[in-house]
Amino acid sequence: MSKVRLFLDHPLAEGQPVPLGADQAHYLFGVMRLGLGARLSVFNGRDGEWEAEVAEAGKRAGRLVAREQTRPQAMPPDLWLLFAPIKKARTDFIVEKAAEMGCRRIRPVQTEFTNSERVRADRLRAHAVEAAEQCGGVFVPEVDEIARLGDVLAGWDVARTLWFCDETLAAAEASLPAWSGSPGAVLIGPEGGFSDAERARLRALPFARPIRLGPRILRADTAAVAALALWQMVEGDWR
Amino acid sequence: MSKVRLFLDHPLAEGQPVPLGADQAHYLFGVMRLGLGARLSVFNGRDGEWEAEVAEAGKRAGRLVAREQTRPQAMPPDLWLLFAPIKKARTDFIVEKAAEMGCRRIRPVQTEFTNSERVRADRLRAHAVEAAEQCGGVFVPEVDEIARLGDVLAGWDVARTLWFCDETLAAAEASLPAWSGSPGAVLIGPEGGFSDAERARLRALPFARPIRLGPRILRADTAAVAALALWQMVEGDWR
Repeated sequence: MSKVRLFLDHPLAEGQPVPLGADQAHYLFGVMRLGLGARLSVFNGRDGEWEAEVAEAGKRAGRLVAREQTRPQAMPPDLWLLFAPIKKARTDFIVEKAAEMGCRRIRPVQTEFTNSERVRADRLRAHAVEAAEQCGGVFVPEVDEIARLGDVLAGWDVARTLWFCDETLAAAEASLPAWSGSPGAVLIGPEGGFSDAERARLRALPFARPIRLGPRILRADTAAVAALALWQMVEGDWR
Repeated sequence: MSKVRLFLDHPLAEGQPVPLGADQAHYLFGVMRLGLGARLSVFNGRDGEWEAEVAEAGKRAGRLVAREQTRPQAMPPDLWLLFAPIKKARTDFIVEKAAEMGCRRIRPVQTEFTNSERVRADRLRAHAVEAAEQCGGVFVPEVDEIARLGDVLAGWDVARTLWFCDETLAAAEASLPAWSGSPGAVLIGPEGGFSDAERARLRALPFARPIRLGPRILRADTAAVAALALWQMVEGDWR
């Protein structure tokens, strides 16, 4: 994995030229010191991974040519992560982890106890891209703008099971994800938990099932990775 | 959880006076602004959680008195985490996560591809304490000094199953933790993976079993949380 990997929002096919913008040229030729003829791995989230060659290297622009596909496109299972944003560093972390864990879509949600600065979806998207670049993924999750939890639930597709982590749940009431074959979503509440009204609403939803992540209180970022791991093991591509 | 929580390495019982050192006095009276008669939660990893009262508050010293036990001592299942230290921030993170996930013991190991500055076990212990304070735990994992993986394996108690994460494993060869009732340990390799010699040795050990955490490459800190979650769900106290 020492080869440079770069996400490019451009079609990739054999012989396809790919123009580079100023940021990409700076990164490849200034920071990573690639020269003409150098090879790197590129992906666009749709066409798999390609080996590309540097065909032009300038200070503020450049061009690659895609040479051969090194991995086919592979989509992760149909899993989303919904989370209530927390402190900035931990929010970045959750996005990075969701990308590594193979979430297709990341949806920040505003809950009653969410106490957070504005969430910039473009910054979170950049984190998701970086995680995919570093972890050898050929897929980058979508990142939505933040929305109110109530609005998200009101427009929910009932075919998608929503696993919400509820730390007030007694052990006997808890579900663990069980194979259902349906698309899934994991919902992690804010550090203060869900409000009573939110919890009551969630429990009443026919597509929602509570899960309990053990007897210890987990930080939101820990809970996200743990819940996604359980889902991947039971429903996803870790089976 | 807005009440101050403090780990104290001192016996706790009803009416027990607990002298405070300079750092603790500074934290409680200088930073958290507690005054005489204020209540806080304390634990020592052995006697459960206690409500304590401030009986003396000085600039460089002080005294608490334990009033009543608010939670009994609870030990997590017999699970260890072995990991190859990585960059400093991520190493701190792994220790924090291991504490949240209920590991009893954290063992940094030196592998062939471990490329890390010196690991200071006292600093890692401080992180484990902080994680326990923040997450409501009454238990703090032990943190060992770093040791060579070969030496750790040579002295291994064969009754403890060692689950090692092997990203070279084909899906068909992989195990998932299955209920065995035996103590467990999760081993996470360094970013560069295990060497061929290490992997061959691990695979030949009768107490070691390989696990595979899906088709995507995970960072070491993500892999640690994911593997610990699977173990807790199958073998531990998330069942």
